[in-house]
Amino acid sequence: MKILEHPDLAYSQVAQWRQSGQRVGLIPTMGALHAGHLSLVRRSLEECDRTVATIFVNPTQFGPGEDFAKYPRTQQQDLSGLSELGVDLVFAPSQSDLYPEGFSTFLQPPAAAEPLEGIFRPIHFRGVVTVVLKLFHILPATIAYFGQKDYQQLTVIRRMVHDLNVPILVQGCPTVRQADGLAMSSRNRYLTAQQRPSALCLWKALESAKRMFEQGHREVSAIEAEMQRILKQEGADRIDYARIVDAEYLTDLQRIDRTAVALVAVHVGQTRLIDNCLLEV
Amino acid sequence: MKILEHPDLAYSQVAQWRQSGQRVGLIPTMGALHAGHLSLVRRSLEECDRTVATIFVNPTQFGPGEDFAKYPRTQQQDLSGLSELGVDLVFAPSQSDLYPEGFSTFLQPPAAAEPLEGIFRPIHFRGVVTVVLKLFHILPATIAYFGQKDYQQLTVIRRMVHDLNVPILVQGCPTVRQADGLAMSSRNRYLTAQQRPSALCLWKALESAKRMFEQGHREVSAIEAEMQRILKQEGADRIDYARIVDAEYLTDLQRIDRTAVALVAVHVGQTRLIDNCLLEV
Repeated sequence: MKILEHPDLAYSQVAQWRQSGQRVGLIPTMGALHAGHLSLVRRSLEECDRTVATIFVNPTQFGPGEDFAKYPRTQQQDLSGLSELGVDLVFAPSQSDLYPEGFSTFLQPPAAAEPLEGIFRPIHFRGVVTVVLKLFHILPATIAYFGQKDYQQLTVIRRMVHDLNVPILVQGCPTVRQADGLAMSSRNRYLTAQQRPSALCLWKALESAKRMFEQGHREVSAIEAEMQRILKQEGADRIDYARIVDAEYLTDLQRIDRTAVALVAVHVGQTRLIDNCLLEV
Repeated sequence: MKILEHPDLAYSQVAQWRQSGQRVGLIPTMGALHAGHLSLVRRSLEECDRTVATIFVNPTQFGPGEDFAKYPRTQQQDLSGLSELGVDLVFAPSQSDLYPEGFSTFLQPPAAAEPLEGIFRPIHFRGVVTVVLKLFHILPATIAYFGQKDYQQLTVIRRMVHDLNVPILVQGCPTVRQADGLAMSSRNRYLTAQQRPSALCLWKALESAKRMFEQGHREVSAIEAEMQRILKQEGADRIDYARIVDAEYLTDLQRIDRTAVALVAVHVGQTRLIDNCLLEV
C-alpha cells in the first residue's frame, strides 16, 4: 500500500490509473477508522480496480469550541487496517499541504446545508464541501463512497457535485451499527462506560419514529414530539434537533407524503452524536 | 466543428480526447468574439491537439442594473469565426443547462477578488469562478486560456485553481489592442462614434503611468494621481478606479518595490471599460 502526502504525487498516481482505463474508488475519511469506514472500503474493493482512502482531520469544518484539537488521531492503526483490507493508496496530507499560506477560496454550500447541522454548526458544511472538492480534484476517482450516517453531509455533497458538474459518482452506503443499534462513529470513543447506554437514545428515538410511520402515522409534528420524548427519557443531556424532513432536499414537511428522513442530534455528556433513518413512502 | 449544448455530451467528447492522450485547450468566452478571443484560440491551436471554445453569457456574474440583457449576442458570426480557425468543439449551453432549477452551490472567490472590480461589482467574481469551475469540470482540458485584459479575473481564476487543486493549467495571454491602443473588448460595441476617442483615455493613462515608472518614479500615490488626471482630461465620464497594486496578490503598495500592475476602470457614456498594464521591476 502506497502512502502519499503530497497532492501532486497523489494526483499523478490516480490520473495514471484512470488514464489506463481503471475504475478508482475513493473513501475520504478523517481517520479514527471504524467498521463503518471499513464497509465503504470493502464496497470500493468489490466495485473498483483501485481503492484510495484519505486520512485528514479537516480544520475548516470545525467551528470554534468544537472538538478539532481532541478529535481522535489513530493513524498507525488506521494504516494497518487499510493495508490489511488491500487498499492501494492512502492520501494523508498535512494541514499545510491542503491549506498553504494564502489559501482563500471556499465553496458556499448548497441550500441543503442550511437546516439541521447548518443551524448548530454554521461553518461546518462550507469546510466539508471545500475539502471534499479539493480531494476530488487531487484524487480524480470514478466513484466516491460516503456513509449514510452523515445523511445531510451526503445530501450536500451530492448536490455540490451535481451543481458544479464534478465528474465523479457519489455513492451513499448503509450505516453500520453496533449490535444494540448505536451507529458507528469516531466520536463514540469519547463516551464513558456510564454514558454508553444513554447514547442508545438516538437509535431508540429513530426506531419509535419508524414504528409510528409503519403504523400509519403521517403527521410530522406528532412523530417529532415522540422522538423528543424518547431522547429525553433515554438519556440525552441536550437535544439539538429531532426532525423529519424531505429526504432529497431536507426541506420542511407537514405530512409524510413522499420519502422522508428522520434525523436526530443530541449531546450525551460532552459528546455530540447524530443519527438518522429513512421513512420510505 | 462540433457544437454541443449538453454538459454530459461535451464531457464525454473531451474526456475521450484526454483518455487517448491528446492535449486539449479550452477558451471560455461569453461570445461577441473579437481579435482578443481569436488570439487565444490561435494560441491553443498551436499548443494543443484539440481546441474547445465555450460561448455562454453567464447571468451569475452580472449584478442588478448591469448589462446582462443587452450584452452583445452574435452567435452565428462567432461560430463561423471559430470554425474557420479550426476549432474542434464549441460548447454553447443554455442557461438551464448550466443553472437548472434548484442550483444553489457557488464558489466564494479568493481574497484577490475583493479590491478593484470587487468593490464596484460585488457579486461579479463569485459568478465568474463558479461558472469557470463548472466549465473546467464539463470540459476537462489540459490548458485554459484567458486574456490579460481582464487581469483581476485572470488572477482570481489562477488563485481558485491553485486553492482548489483543479488539475488544469491556466495560461494568461497578452491583451490585443486596436491600432491606437484601445484594448479589444466586446463592450467596445456599445461606444458611439463620438465616444470612441474618449475610450482612449484608459490607454493614455496607462501609458503615462508606464512612462513615469520608466523615468524612475516609484511612489504609487503620485502615479495614481497622474492617471486620474489623464483619465478626466481625456474623456472619462466617471472613474471607478485608477490603481497600482501588487501584481500577484492585488494588495496595496506604497512604493513599487516589486512587480506591480496599473489598473483602470472608467465609464464612457453608458459603457464601462477596463484596462491594465504591468510595471515590471
